[in-house]
Amino acid sequence: METVIQRLNGDLPGGNELYIKRDDLLPFSMGGNKVRIAEAFFQDMREKGCDVMVVYGSRHSNLCRVLSNLCCSRGVDCVMICSHEDKEETASTNNTYLIEWAGAQVVHCPKSQIALTVERVMEDQMARGKRPYYIYGDKFGRGNEGTAAKAYAQAYQEIRTFEQEQGWEFDQIFCPSGTGATQSGLICGHLLAGDRKRILGVMISSRETQRAFDVIREGVKDYFLKAGKELPEQYEQEILLLDDYRQGGYGRYDERIESCIHEQYRRNGIPLDPVYTAKAFWGMQEYLKETGIKKNKILFLHTGGGPLFYDFLKKEGAKSGRC
Amino acid sequence: METVIQRLNGDLPGGNELYIKRDDLLPFSMGGNKVRIAEAFFQDMREKGCDVMVVYGSRHSNLCRVLSNLCCSRGVDCVMICSHEDKEETASTNNTYLIEWAGAQVVHCPKSQIALTVERVMEDQMARGKRPYYIYGDKFGRGNEGTAAKAYAQAYQEIRTFEQEQGWEFDQIFCPSGTGATQSGLICGHLLAGDRKRILGVMISSRETQRAFDVIREGVKDYFLKAGKELPEQYEQEILLLDDYRQGGYGRYDERIESCIHEQYRRNGIPLDPVYTAKAFWGMQEYLKETGIKKNKILFLHTGGGPLFYDFLKKEGAKSGRC
Repeated sequence: METVIQRLNGDLPGGNELYIKRDDLLPFSMGGNKVRIAEAFFQDMREKGCDVMVVYGSRHSNLCRVLSNLCCSRGVDCVMICSHEDKEETASTNNTYLIEWAGAQVVHCPKSQIALTVERVMEDQMARGKRPYYIYGDKFGRGNEGTAAKAYAQAYQEIRTFEQEQGWEFDQIFCPSGTGATQSGLICGHLLAGDRKRILGVMISSRETQRAFDVIREGVKDYFLKAGKELPEQYEQEILLLDDYRQGGYGRYDERIESCIHEQYRRNGIPLDPVYTAKAFWGMQEYLKETGIKKNKILFLHTGGGPLFYDFLKKEGAKSGRC
Repeated sequence: METVIQRLNGDLPGGNELYIKRDDLLPFSMGGNKVRIAEAFFQDMREKGCDVMVVYGSRHSNLCRVLSNLCCSRGVDCVMICSHEDKEETASTNNTYLIEWAGAQVVHCPKSQIALTVERVMEDQMARGKRPYYIYGDKFGRGNEGTAAKAYAQAYQEIRTFEQEQGWEFDQIFCPSGTGATQSGLICGHLLAGDRKRILGVMISSRETQRAFDVIREGVKDYFLKAGKELPEQYEQEILLLDDYRQGGYGRYDERIESCIHEQYRRNGIPLDPVYTAKAFWGMQEYLKETGIKKNKILFLHTGGGPLFYDFLKKEGAKSGRC
């Protein structure tokens, strides 16, 4: 399941060369980083002898789309725990419809009762003779951070292979930083390779930076622990988060993000979405301008979110009054 | 610009093994067969020393989306001739919006005056000192059939490489047959290879079968002529069209197509659209049932149309009343 790395048209500030890894083109369920991550969870579920996938997430979530689709395609039940607030406050999106297509069983609960609901769902499944698997570990969502990290520790090898073919190394990798799973995986790959590049997560939500840092650290630690490998001492220095480009938090954006989407479509035929990839892409451009980094070879990881690009296009269409 | 060939989940009638070539994942402008075809036109334009792309097409067209995007990304003007009827009678779609993003100059005309308008646009461009290129050849749309065919004559080599790696050959290739360009290219590749497989175009519009046959024949002839290669005598026998699965013509479909879309998403995480790919996929399934073909190795060419999949999803969402 490899994806292509392309050189992009258009200059970055400072004469930096820009490449993009097209994980939006992973060939399952509309692509995106969650395809690798969902596969890692699915494999972990099998290895633990479980037979029901339990996930907490939102009706708009890329991970929930892919996980529910993966379960459906493999004939495994999927239970999706979803907060009431999410159901009541937010309109349906492309991911919402696709999650419905995949037929996951949805369990609603107040946001304050997630742990309780996870516990109840697990017990209920066991009472039916099933062996449920909660992707985040215990009912508080801890203990399984390394599984998601594994996906991008492996994907990192594809980047290494590309570098070896080219005969040079990227100086920086940028990716959107939401849950932190992708970034922690890349950092694991980087630590294992012992190479010199920097991996920068562009924060796209209002999650506190220290909290984001801690979650990534847990991912890295858990991955090394389970892989039985020794964690380099200075590993925390490799966790780099850019928190100046959030634009008001998750899902919020202004015309700078809209311009970035238009520009990358026009220049490179690449769809970016306003929630994750365009915000991170724009943040990367700003960061390069501000820091004055020059003549670096830069890799942007396109983490997908195709359905969100089309949500945006629908909204744009409605705006233009031609819909 | 290679794409993956995947084995699909789910039995085909008659124990046939089904594979799919994911040209929907071509890494430019939302993918699809038109990416290869637009590149072939663009290269031909350059070779002919031209500097303005002129295309006739609809506001919903995948080809117009990709061509306008390609021109925009390479800094070349694109003029799109579009019938009044198309503008007035049909609602905007995702492709419509993306064509607008790419900023093609749109020229409207009555359907009866296409040739005249092509001529006028060409003259107008020349009067400005430009060298316009009309993708279809002369003002009546003849004389350049081989260029589009070339794209899939080349893509056919990717299929051959896959077969060599596997150590066996596909028995049949199915693809949607609309303009005929993709099918004629595949037939060229097949004739050049001298292999034994059958290439079947599933007609998706109400175009008369004889007319579709003629257009494909012109594509094959023109390709061989321009490549300076000898056309095998019996080549017309290789033009195979299935015309029983049109469901009322272009863009029309019933619940059998809808089920096919849901099923392929659920089973394989693959988006099919009701206009081209799902109709052809369904037609393929029906044909295999009716003919009783057994234990063949079958390749379905996914020709893309991602934006149309999301048009369908939007419609479905509205239908479910949850939008």
